[in-house]
Amino acid sequence: MSLRAREIAELVGGQLTGNPDELIAGVAGIREAQPGDVTFVASPKYWGAVATTRASLILLARDAKVDTARTLIRVDNPVVAFTEVVKRLMPPPVKFAPGIHATAVIAPDAKLGRDVSIQPHAVIEAGAVIGDRTVIGAGTYVGHDCRLGTDCLLYPNVTLREYTVLGNRVILHSGVVLGADGFGYEKVDGRHQKIPQVGTVEVGDDVEIGANTAIDRARFGKTRIGRGTKIDNLVQIGHNCVIGEDCIICGLVGLAGSTIIGNGVTVAGQVGMAGHLVVGDNSIIMAQAGVTKDVPPNSFMLGAPAVPHKEFKRINAATQRLPELVEKVRLLEQQLAALCAASSQP
Amino acid sequence: MSLRAREIAELVGGQLTGNPDELIAGVAGIREAQPGDVTFVASPKYWGAVATTRASLILLARDAKVDTARTLIRVDNPVVAFTEVVKRLMPPPVKFAPGIHATAVIAPDAKLGRDVSIQPHAVIEAGAVIGDRTVIGAGTYVGHDCRLGTDCLLYPNVTLREYTVLGNRVILHSGVVLGADGFGYEKVDGRHQKIPQVGTVEVGDDVEIGANTAIDRARFGKTRIGRGTKIDNLVQIGHNCVIGEDCIICGLVGLAGSTIIGNGVTVAGQVGMAGHLVVGDNSIIMAQAGVTKDVPPNSFMLGAPAVPHKEFKRINAATQRLPELVEKVRLLEQQLAALCAASSQP
Amino acid sequence: MSLRAREIAELVGGQLTGNPDELIAGVAGIREAQPGDVTFVASPKYWGAVATTRASLILLARDAKVDTARTLIRVDNPVVAFTEVVKRLMPPPVKFAPGIHATAVIAPDAKLGRDVSIQPHAVIEAGAVIGDRTVIGAGTYVGHDCRLGTDCLLYPNVTLREYTVLGNRVILHSGVVLGADGFGYEKVDGRHQKIPQVGTVEVGDDVEIGANTAIDRARFGKTRIGRGTKIDNLVQIGHNCVIGEDCIICGLVGLAGSTIIGNGVTVAGQVGMAGHLVVGDNSIIMAQAGVTKDVPPNSFMLGAPAVPHKEFKRINAATQRLPELVEKVRLLEQQLAALCAASSQP
Repeated sequence: MSLRAREIAELVGGQLTGNPDELIAGVAGIREAQPGDVTFVASPKYWGAVATTRASLILLARDAKVDTARTLIRVDNPVVAFTEVVKRLMPPPVKFAPGIHATAVIAPDAKLGRDVSIQPHAVIEAGAVIGDRTVIGAGTYVGHDCRLGTDCLLYPNVTLREYTVLGNRVILHSGVVLGADGFGYEKVDGRHQKIPQVGTVEVGDDVEIGANTAIDRARFGKTRIGRGTKIDNLVQIGHNCVIGEDCIICGLVGLAGSTIIGNGVTVAGQVGMAGHLVVGDNSIIMAQAGVTKDVPPNSFMLGAPAVPHKEFKRINAATQRLPELVEKVRLLEQQLAALCAASSQP
Repeated sequence: MSLRAREIAELVGGQLTGNPDELIAGVAGIREAQPGDVTFVASPKYWGAVATTRASLILLARDAKVDTARTLIRVDNPVVAFTEVVKRLMPPPVKFAPGIHATAVIAPDAKLGRDVSIQPHAVIEAGAVIGDRTVIGAGTYVGHDCRLGTDCLLYPNVTLREYTVLGNRVILHSGVVLGADGFGYEKVDGRHQKIPQVGTVEVGDDVEIGANTAIDRARFGKTRIGRGTKIDNLVQIGHNCVIGEDCIICGLVGLAGSTIIGNGVTVAGQVGMAGHLVVGDNSIIMAQAGVTKDVPPNSFMLGAPAVPHKEFKRINAATQRLPELVEKVRLLEQQLAALCAASSQP
Repeated sequence: MSLRAREIAELVGGQLTGNPDELIAGVAGIREAQPGDVTFVASPKYWGAVATTRASLILLARDAKVDTARTLIRVDNPVVAFTEVVKRLMPPPVKFAPGIHATAVIAPDAKLGRDVSIQPHAVIEAGAVIGDRTVIGAGTYVGHDCRLGTDCLLYPNVTLREYTVLGNRVILHSGVVLGADGFGYEKVDGRHQKIPQVGTVEVGDDVEIGANTAIDRARFGKTRIGRGTKIDNLVQIGHNCVIGEDCIICGLVGLAGSTIIGNGVTVAGQVGMAGHLVVGDNSIIMAQAGVTKDVPPNSFMLGAPAVPHKEFKRINAATQRLPELVEKVRLLEQQLAALCAASSQP
């Protein structure tokens, strides 16, 4: 799939300068772009990059103050125009047609909604309920008595252990494991004895969970992910955690057991949280922080152990200047010694 | 499944106050509980939470000093009583019946013990040996010449590469990968050339390994996990690591190659360890620590780079008060300057 | 498989001292070795370990200054000799014969090269192209229109989403997920609305990717991994990242979206990088660092936030001695107070 620069100008209703025959086959951000790509500039911050990008065509705002001989299309809204071009140049998203593949293994008493799509080698265990139009990807396992809502999309090689519940429009990426046993042991005579993990996992509507993320079933009761929360790849969520609605949990985050997170919370990459904590609504926990105490609502936390932003900044600034401080103290010691010597002179 | 409060009181032999008809369908910790849940209080620390929990029924000790109009059941041991209730209200654990599913692919020379359960789409390669009563979950792959003990439980979508050895009663959660190649290269003319990884992985009796954890095969010899050790989700264990018995390795821990960990060691979440280290018996490494040197037995390490607890506490306390120290030094400078000026006065 | 010490001496052309009948069945590093293992010493650093290793046989250099009654074989090059022994004692690597298993599900219009090996329960979707001699492991999923080069090796339970492109000789370990949707949302009326992720993933020749690693598809354009780059287990690479050639990315690293990494870069374990950064060629980022700014070529970065090596060392050294500095300041305050008191004396 490729388009000439002038075809793109027509498509987006823009004003072309430069080579109208430039052949465009790819789309990319301004820094990653290669020859043959179209890119865009949405902010004055990137005007300078117009001169250096390797893209063959640049979409930018009509009033952008950029003076260059490169092939450009000026448009009202570069983001909207670029999205149009992306739709034309990128291959269409794959759709899975309704139907049940002959190799899928489905328990006789599983209940399948209308227009579900069950892909090759999927397994649906006894008692499971699959909502209308839900897609179960190739090799995906839906355990006993799981209940899945409508319009869910489970990509290939997902595992749902028994009794897991999904709301509607839930997206689970490949390698997701929901409902593995929580990590709980009691020490008996110096050995770790397994504590039964008889609870479940419950995921709300419109949740999306990234590749290879693991959310453990509760020891008892439910591990819960609230409506609209989005979880990135390779996240570990311990047993009995309760995550609110509309949260963002980034890659490689680890939550120990029984931690409760409010609504609208953002947890950046590689954050770790101890167990049995409460994080208040709308808080933001910055990357790699280590949360060891409850966090009040609307907090902005950094560092390990995590502290509020203002405190972190003061401590971090002082730490970065610590060698300077050491030098100052050394000077003070010298001066004081000299002063003492002088004052003890007759 | 649900029970009235008075039915629960009978079940646990407790003394009910409040509404005997309260309908209970769920179980939860005191902070996560919702209306309709039963919860429990095992420690005076949580007596205050009795007033604020949303649970509809609370189990607590006969002598707990709690004065409330809420529906309670007083019992001798709230933990034991709660466990009884959990068993009645929670769905029963799933059991996999012995037998071989028609879609499993099993090499003719694989040796299957008595009463094994081989689930749909499992693959057992040539030369593999599966012990009595072991369960191989749906889509799980058991590579060439693997040897699995008795009573193992491999959940769906586990991968065991060739020659992996498991003891008895080993539990592997979904997404576990044992025996992928170690990460080893030699630089030849500026390019990374793969070092053959011809060793194996050997897992002792009673080991449990969490979802999506990866343990690499040895470059040569064996990567070993000792009897009774429990490993959480999303842990990375490099080639040739040797982990002792009865250890606890928490989520998102990363061990580089050839590190040796003693018996009874606890490694908390997101800890990283460099390669070729030795960690002594019964040491505890706290969350997010970065271990860069050998650790003597019975150590308690924190921080990155990790240092003993006492040292960490002194350094961390001083760091938290660093802005204060900066201010003190500023004052000293002023006072000294004033003193110098005064003493240079005629 | 086992050999007598004298058989090993013959095999490697070495000079045996000690017990020629010692029976050797395993190979191991000098610290992990058990009785019955052969090990080797390649560096004077480990001469001392010859006395303490539990190995039954040690290969070492003819001129090694080691005086011991243990069973030894002296050779010209202990590494070469040991590699010879490893080949004889370790089981041979598994090869997958060409052919298509009856349980594999292959779209009629998929194009398979010569001598491909398609293992049980693999799925190859419509439009996919598989190069000559490439192996598709059991349960592995190759999505629509994927293009795989020649001599690739995809282990069991890998997932390639639609349009993923692999070069030649690419190795993907079990649990790898390429092309899951990037993690991108726009906040609309307080809720996170999914941004379509219509780009792809493109992996160069000779790339190896470790178990359970996830590399997201681009929002648009391509997420790219350059030729010869090696990626360890449980790594998260966000949408639109571009990684250069001959890089080393260690376990549990997390890269947020759109970060660009040059050629020959080493990223050690558990490093995190913010999005939209540029890391210059041949830089080294040490373990657990948190990269928040662009990194110039040939940098050596540590810490979180990451700073150049020299700066880190100064800051870290000062931090480790911080309690000492606090004490110094306390003394200065006392001395100064005494001096002030003295000078205000009549």
